[in-house]
Amino acid sequence: MSLDAVLSQIDATLPQATARLLDLLRIPSISTDPAFASACDRAADWLVDELASLGFQAEKRPTPGHPMVVAHCGSGAGPHLLFYGHYDVQPVDPLALWSRDPFDPVVEQTANGEVIRGRGSSDDKGQLMTFVEACRAWRAVHGSLPGRITIFFEGEEESGSPSLIPFMQANAVELRADLALICDTGLFDSKTPAIVTMLRGLLGEEITLRGPNKDLHSGMYGGAAINPIRVLARIIASLHDDTGRITVPGFYDGVTELPDAVRAQWQNLAFDHARFLGDVGLSVPAGEADRTPLEMLWSRPTCEVNGIWGGYTGDGFKTVLPAEAHAKISFRLVGGQDPDVLRESFRAYVRAMLPADCTVEFAGHGTSPAGQMAIDHPAFDLARQALSAEWGRAAAYVGCGGSIPIAGYFKSILGMDAMLIGFGKDDDQIHSPNEKYAMESFHKGIRSWARILARLT
Amino acid sequence: MSLDAVLSQIDATLPQATARLLDLLRIPSISTDPAFASACDRAADWLVDELASLGFQAEKRPTPGHPMVVAHCGSGAGPHLLFYGHYDVQPVDPLALWSRDPFDPVVEQTANGEVIRGRGSSDDKGQLMTFVEACRAWRAVHGSLPGRITIFFEGEEESGSPSLIPFMQANAVELRADLALICDTGLFDSKTPAIVTMLRGLLGEEITLRGPNKDLHSGMYGGAAINPIRVLARIIASLHDDTGRITVPGFYDGVTELPDAVRAQWQNLAFDHARFLGDVGLSVPAGEADRTPLEMLWSRPTCEVNGIWGGYTGDGFKTVLPAEAHAKISFRLVGGQDPDVLRESFRAYVRAMLPADCTVEFAGHGTSPAGQMAIDHPAFDLARQALSAEWGRAAAYVGCGGSIPIAGYFKSILGMDAMLIGFGKDDDQIHSPNEKYAMESFHKGIRSWARILARLT
Repeated sequence: MSLDAVLSQIDATLPQATARLLDLLRIPSISTDPAFASACDRAADWLVDELASLGFQAEKRPTPGHPMVVAHCGSGAGPHLLFYGHYDVQPVDPLALWSRDPFDPVVEQTANGEVIRGRGSSDDKGQLMTFVEACRAWRAVHGSLPGRITIFFEGEEESGSPSLIPFMQANAVELRADLALICDTGLFDSKTPAIVTMLRGLLGEEITLRGPNKDLHSGMYGGAAINPIRVLARIIASLHDDTGRITVPGFYDGVTELPDAVRAQWQNLAFDHARFLGDVGLSVPAGEADRTPLEMLWSRPTCEVNGIWGGYTGDGFKTVLPAEAHAKISFRLVGGQDPDVLRESFRAYVRAMLPADCTVEFAGHGTSPAGQMAIDHPAFDLARQALSAEWGRAAAYVGCGGSIPIAGYFKSILGMDAMLIGFGKDDDQIHSPNEKYAMESFHKGIRSWARILARLT
Repeated sequence: MSLDAVLSQIDATLPQATARLLDLLRIPSISTDPAFASACDRAADWLVDELASLGFQAEKRPTPGHPMVVAHCGSGAGPHLLFYGHYDVQPVDPLALWSRDPFDPVVEQTANGEVIRGRGSSDDKGQLMTFVEACRAWRAVHGSLPGRITIFFEGEEESGSPSLIPFMQANAVELRADLALICDTGLFDSKTPAIVTMLRGLLGEEITLRGPNKDLHSGMYGGAAINPIRVLARIIASLHDDTGRITVPGFYDGVTELPDAVRAQWQNLAFDHARFLGDVGLSVPAGEADRTPLEMLWSRPTCEVNGIWGGYTGDGFKTVLPAEAHAKISFRLVGGQDPDVLRESFRAYVRAMLPADCTVEFAGHGTSPAGQMAIDHPAFDLARQALSAEWGRAAAYVGCGGSIPIAGYFKSILGMDAMLIGFGKDDDQIHSPNEKYAMESFHKGIRSWARILARLT
């Protein structure tokens, strides 16, 4: 019944936990803007103090950018868990769209219950504090923390994490644990907890096609001279067949079908794709013909054009036949797709489509492989049980259409599996004005971690 | 032998004719820049004075923009010819690329012979003065001009001719003649005279495709949400089939095949398409598979994309799935193609290709029908004989890939046929720095008009 005592302690001290979160939210730790560098430093100090008060050996660790916070507690027997979050936040512009000062947080009553309003409330200060507060309650009841716990907070997640990989490499022995817990994701829906088990990877390519050696007059040359925009359009149009499959040879190498159990569970989620698309003015899933919308978003690779430009794009009309045309194209990757191999396959495909007199130049943008969490690791089922018990609904193993590189780094640099659990809701407005975190997310999030710690340790 | 006397007079007075042209070139009559409005007015005055000195009843005629110059000479019997040119010139920037002040013209020796260097020397002051000087020499020998001649000079050709149509409509009775002579085109090559008998028309369309109601994150939505750039690429790619033919239904209605005589003559021109394309870095004619390069340029319709844009086009990468995509598309028209009908055909074609959740908005840009000169008019063969005699080579009936609307206006507003004869060379750098007019163009141009007048009157 000791877990019950911890949960009761959490319930009883929620106002104090909320007050602490508001304290942290008052620190404007915008990592991308050098003007806020000292605020980032202050946020790190604040966290070090909190963790030290819970019995952690906590340190602010310098990087070329904003500091990391690393804290250790416990030793010896029991599993070693590493918890990751980030204390930096997104910029707040456009400030005029906020209903109040983004760094003067408050608890508000809304039609959907209490929310904590302020920049970083959901992404990621509120989320990381769910774990800290779970530790606090645990310690209040038991006098110490369970097992062995390392906490690792980053201050550059919203500005590209430039220091993360070098720091992990330089401190690999210290940071390596049995399992990483990452709290930077959301619920499946506002009532259903989720563990992200699949993250799509990314491959970005920019292509520049060149034809004539200068812009031509379409009256003088139109008909006889190649037009790079038309060539580019043909290449882009050819990248998908009529069923929505991507045509680059070898593209699906490494793409695996969903395990039956996961497929069945996703079907049970009854994802409301009509509402998902309806919210952005659409009605029909536009991806592969034989796939469900959730597969399109979570477990299938994509090829998208993120930008295109060439010729005259101003007001009015200019009958130019342009020398160049450009596109930014990105691929979301799944399973074992190898971004480096695909980059070369894509480039070969484009080169093979070039007509006479047309050349191409490629610029590679970032790559990350897809993340496939080790759901056969026993911690996943234990965490699922814990979440299901707390939320009263079966926790879902879900995918994530975007890329969260940190999960891959834990595996590739530290050799450890990661479990992504978070409590954000779709309407949290992260990265946007009026960001909020539901009090329910905060409260049940703290309780969820207590339940998970009880099961994992 | 009176023509010989006129030609001798032209040869003997070439230095004075050149000096007069240099006078006119010193007037910076840039029509598009209001700062040069008084210079445009001065150029019109200069021409009125010149024409008056040749016995014309010459007037500067006001418009809402720059003035027209209208002059009449002769009456009664004999054909009534109208000669058109424009006294305004293009801007001169970038000034740094000129080897001398654009409005301090000079006669220079070059590897290819003497040239008159200065803004407007070829386009169109040098050209219009070929006719004026032919009239002067004729009058010096004969005491009067042949037949009945109207001269019509415009001062807004380089700025879109906003006053032209209203002026022609308001003065239709005065301007109507038996035939219009337009001197604003070039030789076929540096030694071969040409009469332009076909001008392509133009239809411009701008399309905006819309999908989601806002820009989306390609990680969150990629795969399930429609991407307007991809839809646009498919539409553009589909506009031509594999042989280069345009696929819009009914597009070729009104396109006629070349008369055999014209086709044979074009073949005899031995157009150097390798050099034409090589000059702009290309090697292979990119148009319809079964057409010669000259056909592609002069007698076949085209569809080109003049501009395209959508999504993120800045530095770096942004994984946006854009709400909109845009393109500017133009068609060059030939024969009896009806621009208004084709506009609707194109729009219907695009609408039929739209997938669910995608809408289109069209913005129409200018249209002009193709121009087909009346080469069965006896003046054409007479002018051809005159040009052939002067240049020592058979004059060519050629096409022009671009659009010269004035020829169409003479037909549609005044009901008169037009003949386009000019002496510009490909390397005259019109609209560019260091514009020049070959002394050969000027000298033989004057002589050409004397020969044409002798045959037509």
